[in-house]
Amino acid sequence: MAYKVKIHKHGQCSEYRVNEGTNLLAFLRQNSYEMHSPCNGQGTCGKCSVKLGGDQVSAPSAGEARLLGEKAVKEGFRLACRTTIGCDLTVYLDNTDFSAKVLTEGTQKSTRLSPMISKKHIHLPVPNLDDQRSDSRRLAEALSLGKELKSLSVLRQLPEALRGDQYHTTLISYGKTPVGVESGDTTNRLYGIAIDIGTTTLAAYLIDLNTGVRLSTCSALNPQRKFGADVISRIKHTMDEAEGLDEMHTVIIGGINEAISELTHRAGIDKNDVWQIVFVGNTTMMHFLLKLSAKNIAAAPFIPAATQTLEIRAAELGIDMNGNGVVVVVPSVAAYIGADTVSAILATGMQKKKKVSLLVDFGTNGEIALGNSEWLMACSAAAGPAFEGANIRCGVGGIRGAIDRFSAEEGSSYTTIEGERPVGICGTGVVDIVSELYRAGIIDETGRLETDPDGLREDSNLLVGRLAKIDGMSAFVIAGADETKHGKEIVMTQKDIRELQNAKAAIAAGIRVLVKRAGISFRDIESVYLAGGFGTYINPQSALNIGLIPPELTGRLESVGNAAGVGAMMVLTSGRALREAENIKKRIGYVELSADKGFNDFYIDEMMFPE
Amino acid sequence: MAYKVKIHKHGQCSEYRVNEGTNLLAFLRQNSYEMHSPCNGQGTCGKCSVKLGGDQVSAPSAGEARLLGEKAVKEGFRLACRTTIGCDLTVYLDNTDFSAKVLTEGTQKSTRLSPMISKKHIHLPVPNLDDQRSDSRRLAEALSLGKELKSLSVLRQLPEALRGDQYHTTLISYGKTPVGVESGDTTNRLYGIAIDIGTTTLAAYLIDLNTGVRLSTCSALNPQRKFGADVISRIKHTMDEAEGLDEMHTVIIGGINEAISELTHRAGIDKNDVWQIVFVGNTTMMHFLLKLSAKNIAAAPFIPAATQTLEIRAAELGIDMNGNGVVVVVPSVAAYIGADTVSAILATGMQKKKKVSLLVDFGTNGEIALGNSEWLMACSAAAGPAFEGANIRCGVGGIRGAIDRFSAEEGSSYTTIEGERPVGICGTGVVDIVSELYRAGIIDETGRLETDPDGLREDSNLLVGRLAKIDGMSAFVIAGADETKHGKEIVMTQKDIRELQNAKAAIAAGIRVLVKRAGISFRDIESVYLAGGFGTYINPQSALNIGLIPPELTGRLESVGNAAGVGAMMVLTSGRALREAENIKKRIGYVELSADKGFNDFYIDEMMFPE
Repeated sequence: MAYKVKIHKHGQCSEYRVNEGTNLLAFLRQNSYEMHSPCNGQGTCGKCSVKLGGDQVSAPSAGEARLLGEKAVKEGFRLACRTTIGCDLTVYLDNTDFSAKVLTEGTQKSTRLSPMISKKHIHLPVPNLDDQRSDSRRLAEALSLGKELKSLSVLRQLPEALRGDQYHTTLISYGKTPVGVESGDTTNRLYGIAIDIGTTTLAAYLIDLNTGVRLSTCSALNPQRKFGADVISRIKHTMDEAEGLDEMHTVIIGGINEAISELTHRAGIDKNDVWQIVFVGNTTMMHFLLKLSAKNIAAAPFIPAATQTLEIRAAELGIDMNGNGVVVVVPSVAAYIGADTVSAILATGMQKKKKVSLLVDFGTNGEIALGNSEWLMACSAAAGPAFEGANIRCGVGGIRGAIDRFSAEEGSSYTTIEGERPVGICGTGVVDIVSELYRAGIIDETGRLETDPDGLREDSNLLVGRLAKIDGMSAFVIAGADETKHGKEIVMTQKDIRELQNAKAAIAAGIRVLVKRAGISFRDIESVYLAGGFGTYINPQSALNIGLIPPELTGRLESVGNAAGVGAMMVLTSGRALREAENIKKRIGYVELSADKGFNDFYIDEMMFPE
Repeated sequence: MAYKVKIHKHGQCSEYRVNEGTNLLAFLRQNSYEMHSPCNGQGTCGKCSVKLGGDQVSAPSAGEARLLGEKAVKEGFRLACRTTIGCDLTVYLDNTDFSAKVLTEGTQKSTRLSPMISKKHIHLPVPNLDDQRSDSRRLAEALSLGKELKSLSVLRQLPEALRGDQYHTTLISYGKTPVGVESGDTTNRLYGIAIDIGTTTLAAYLIDLNTGVRLSTCSALNPQRKFGADVISRIKHTMDEAEGLDEMHTVIIGGINEAISELTHRAGIDKNDVWQIVFVGNTTMMHFLLKLSAKNIAAAPFIPAATQTLEIRAAELGIDMNGNGVVVVVPSVAAYIGADTVSAILATGMQKKKKVSLLVDFGTNGEIALGNSEWLMACSAAAGPAFEGANIRCGVGGIRGAIDRFSAEEGSSYTTIEGERPVGICGTGVVDIVSELYRAGIIDETGRLETDPDGLREDSNLLVGRLAKIDGMSAFVIAGADETKHGKEIVMTQKDIRELQNAKAAIAAGIRVLVKRAGISFRDIESVYLAGGFGTYINPQSALNIGLIPPELTGRLESVGNAAGVGAMMVLTSGRALREAENIKKRIGYVELSADKGFNDFYIDEMMFPE
């Protein structure tokens, strides 16, 4: 049996046929509605509330009633993760889009809707034998452009654009530069897209530039993964294969064009009405997007080809939007501080605050930025792939069934993504497990996993049975073979702990280098922004426990979600935000950790867990 | 038997195998060496002199000796048209290139060698961990560019350009805009091409932009001819066929690329070292070059899509030179006053003279410009194709065997192009014939061809036998069937005379409209420049006799050859000349003859021949 589910969001309504018994949160995520759910569908955080319409909404569970409050329940609010589809349903998401909220706040605070791209309708004088001005000059003079059009592709459209609707014409401009003409008055159709190209995933947002409303969102895996999981292996591919860079460029353009198709299809708009696209991502991703050689990024002294803002005709990159539209590539800072970091800084607004903020975006390279309205600095710490679950014996990415939370209080317990039976441990799970085992005394401050049950503290007795030896290495069993999906034990080994120590030491040492160079103390830092997927879903207390974030910063941590994506949307909707991003790029002092004398000492210290 | 012929020109030497008995002038023309030969190889004008090397140069004929003078003969000068190849020969053309002389004079008078395109070599600091600037910023700062590169295609070349020769790099700029980078010091290789796209022929010139020396020249038929002989039929093709404009564009780009291949091959240079190309031509040709719709040029009110100067990346047009090089399209004025007229005005310098000049470029549309340093105006007179030999019963283009000169003194006589047996009458021949028959009283001032031998003046008795009736129409036999190549009579009919009257009336009336509008008299005109092929080869006295040029202007006529091509070369070699061309475009007042009240009266008056 399938039911009709209508989703209302920003005035757009989409209708789906959904099988009976489907979990609403899972359904929404599958259809790329971004849902905030820190507990990942466990019904404990209360963040995935949605408003349901219709009479057939079931009574709330006790847990929902407690988390939502009486008033919201009466208004029809329920938790998506606790809702199973069993009747036709109308769902209102307007108040439940986390990123949209971030954008909206950003918009209210600092960015008026004033995109670089704009449309203007004009009715031109009709030519006659006494007024034989060329189409180009006629347009330029009517609009007081000062100069005639320079773009051949626009000139080619001009004769039809003027005559298609009796000299009613719409001019499209990027800043003051005319980039397109259309027949008739088309000012009501003007859209833009912001895309964050992650090494692993793309996140894409379609925005109505007349209203600032986000019309659709989608995410997809980065199709470049087939050439390697991390930037270095991808750069290597471009160096080893004659056509490698072409391939790398072509597949990302393909992925982008698929995202554009999905976004525009879902919103029911024409791709030709998309006139601007903004890209952020790490420096290597931006190089591949532009088909710039990234090979000098891979090895010391780590030199990018270009880091400046670039504004390019869409047709030149083969991006499937209006060919005369403008591709904006947000500037990068250095080989390992990319447009994504600039954009994340922009989203936090830390560059305008008097008090000092710290921004950390975890990944194979952890980007760390520190500063305020007077100064900004950044570094990139080579953390390795542990935060992505790689190089961990039972590690997995943030997939269904990944263990993402772990507790060692009163025995051990865990949660998995979407509540599936466990398949492995993702990055946030690794941090939680190590943190909890350290707290329980099963790991000591050097990272050694206790092998002798007699050595354990009394309150950890419940965990004794989980100690094990695997391949001659100490290990701790997180989930027994009978609990897991694949029927094999999920364990954390001594080596896994060492991997995490390396990763966390790199990040923590990077933070300490910046703090030292800035000549400030941890007390001076008002906010610590944790960005990106890992930064959003990590348990902040665990991060502090293991010293991934120096414990001096306790109480000041804040998850900011996909701050890079939010910054990209700000650039899309505001020319001022683009100038601000350029200003951040100019102001920021890049610190090369491999050339920093103090980094190694910090790194060795930070291999230990905090006392 | 074939002989070795070496041609020296501007320091370049080309070697050919040439069959015994070949006429040297014919050979040189076939190989696109531009030769000035007003008598068209009759050995009477003395203009095609060349210097021959080697011992085997034959003694000069009496005619050569008289025309060249004793000194030149001693130095080895001979007339190319009187030289038959009968031994190995070395030919020096340096002093015999007519157009080159014009260019050189132009250069001395007004244009210093200062092309828009330039190269600069620089050695950049090598990056290290303390200097991690991107390639783009490194270059921009070393050259104090102010801004970093904007061109994606240049950025793509940058990493290799810097590292290919240990940070020795050459930057190519157009004005102040960087357009290319090359590895090493390549400043000694910088070339440009100027092309005049005529409706019928292309003329192309390759110039070394480090020296200003012209390295090679070539001309070719415009491959668009297959879509129609004149601009209107070609525009019609682009309107009738869905892909018509694409075709029209593609074939001219193909023709241009063939010319580039020939020019660069002959000069032994690499196409990649051609960094600038300058185009002139009529407005329609410029539209087809740019793939701009020309359909609104064809009908009133005659509106071009664009007439401004355009500067376009070569790759965008598919022109086979350095893809990052710059295509400059000289501005046009109106639908029927094109970049060729602007360029011809530039070549004459009339826009800078205190005294008034008149410029006439004959063709299906005769372009007429009048003015001085204070004012400029221009009009286009629809002359029809008579000057190209079309719509004339025995008319032909300027091909071998075309009757190009005619005299009715002491009987009738004619010359043909390259001295071949006659095949028809070309435009200059038509003018000569009508002029001579009018002078002899065989045509009266209304254009009526005398049909009654008794009506003839006594001194014209020798011509009586040539009067005839053809298809019931009065005619005059120019060449009997026994004289011609095809064995058929070549005649001039009453209808042919009417065609010429129409054509000459249009031009003459156009001139009178401009003179009247300017409020000047013919006495105020100091120089009359006759431009283009027809303007170069026409007998000025005949043009005055029939009133094609108002007889008031007697004594002030000057042929200026391919002035449009010369102007294009000036633009190529001097940024100032480009600004001057833009200035001409801005200053020039276009007079639409079809909207001029006085034009028709002048036209009717000018149908008559001058008394």
